[in-house]
Amino acid sequence: MRNIKLTIEYDGSQYSGWQIQRSQNFPVAGRKKRTIQEVIEKTLQRILQDKIRLIASGRTDAGVHALAQIANFKTKSNISLKNLQYALNGLLPEDITISKTGEKDLGFHSRFAAKSKVYRYLILNQRYPSALLRNRVYFYPYHLDFKLMRQESACLEGRHDFKSFCASGGKPKDTLRSIKRITIAKVSYPFKICRLIAIDIEADGFLYNMVRNIVGTLIHIGSGKSKPPALKKILEAKDRRKAGPTAPAKGLYLMEVKY
Amino acid sequence: MRNIKLTIEYDGSQYSGWQIQRSQNFPVAGRKKRTIQEVIEKTLQRILQDKIRLIASGRTDAGVHALAQIANFKTKSNISLKNLQYALNGLLPEDITISKTGEKDLGFHSRFAAKSKVYRYLILNQRYPSALLRNRVYFYPYHLDFKLMRQESACLEGRHDFKSFCASGGKPKDTLRSIKRITIAKVSYPFKICRLIAIDIEADGFLYNMVRNIVGTLIHIGSGKSKPPALKKILEAKDRRKAGPTAPAKGLYLMEVKY
Repeated sequence: MRNIKLTIEYDGSQYSGWQIQRSQNFPVAGRKKRTIQEVIEKTLQRILQDKIRLIASGRTDAGVHALAQIANFKTKSNISLKNLQYALNGLLPEDITISKTGEKDLGFHSRFAAKSKVYRYLILNQRYPSALLRNRVYFYPYHLDFKLMRQESACLEGRHDFKSFCASGGKPKDTLRSIKRITIAKVSYPFKICRLIAIDIEADGFLYNMVRNIVGTLIHIGSGKSKPPALKKILEAKDRRKAGPTAPAKGLYLMEVKY
Repeated sequence: MRNIKLTIEYDGSQYSGWQIQRSQNFPVAGRKKRTIQEVIEKTLQRILQDKIRLIASGRTDAGVHALAQIANFKTKSNISLKNLQYALNGLLPEDITISKTGEKDLGFHSRFAAKSKVYRYLILNQRYPSALLRNRVYFYPYHLDFKLMRQESACLEGRHDFKSFCASGGKPKDTLRSIKRITIAKVSYPFKICRLIAIDIEADGFLYNMVRNIVGTLIHIGSGKSKPPALKKILEAKDRRKAGPTAPAKGLYLMEVKY
């Protein structure tokens, strides 16, 4: 038996997220889209001629992208790692690509072994939208106080109860998480002059919608809608209703999983 | 009467190029897609309640992108430039956006007044494709000699007969053009570590498929398929058959039109 590790890049816009949806979870007819896990599992089964169960570092929601999602699966096949990568990239739809294949010991588990994850959120902060960056960034045309967002975000670093930023749908046993790093920087595209803000968050774990709720709150603060200091109070309130709205999925990228 | 100038960004992947296609040019049933000109003209007509004829700096082919295509049209409407921009960005499909609106004197003509144009071609030169950059770059997985491509490209600067790089379909009166600048550089994405090569060409005018034929030839040379110096000989041959293949449309961007 072998344990194969995949590094996966995907454009989440055309998918219902990572995880295979069971039909009973999707009662609304016509709303069901393919999931990334389903598409990769089927392609692996086609290549390896065997039923494959893919384990990811965690799920991503509908519309969320990944630069380097990590997933592993077990197989008896003796296919080379190089040929597996070529076959996958040849057969997968163009919006899912395998940037790396590797082999791990049988005990490796993409989710349980993860030490931390890095997410990035991209905000296009200019007056007009961008055709080439649609579905890749959240277009926010109003003024944002970049420095204030930076100052306010600092209080999130460290071990805290992030209950205020946990979506009501998620019911985790505990809401304590450690944010190792939060940075807010201006970034640029190779072909485009635009005002793009990147918010990077590294943590040992994330609650449901935690990054999007933090970003939504930071945008709320940056647009001048709260009297600073606001974020520290929201964090301490441990109440989702005190935080800002959930930022849209299309600006969010799973950048890295650290083991 | 007013003469309005639009700066237009578009993702060309879902269009048959800029120019409205007359049905007789498209005899193959089902192949006809919308054109960018057609979509903007119809949206302008809806906003201004008048028939609008849009003049662009030049056409772009199917799949080619633009960061700043320039087009102008005449109207009797007294709509403000700001409201026109908001209305267009609100009604146009998301893959076409208006980054600027301006007003010019009545004599201004987007094509005739253009002094030079800048095109960029992006090559993703790594072993595996990229889900997030698909339709945005040409994925070329084989080795490219970056320095050699730079050296060879230098001979194209200046006024030359570019007949070797003119698609057989185009029949221009003369094939003399001036390349003001050709640069080849490594560029990067804000969210992605990848080997991306940008070829920028500024010229007073371009023959049909000229950039894509130059890029295809440079890739041919960079991959070691021609003995250097090769480009100078191809240029001097004035024969399309001596040059390399036409590089795919999806890596090409109209970056700027200078007046």
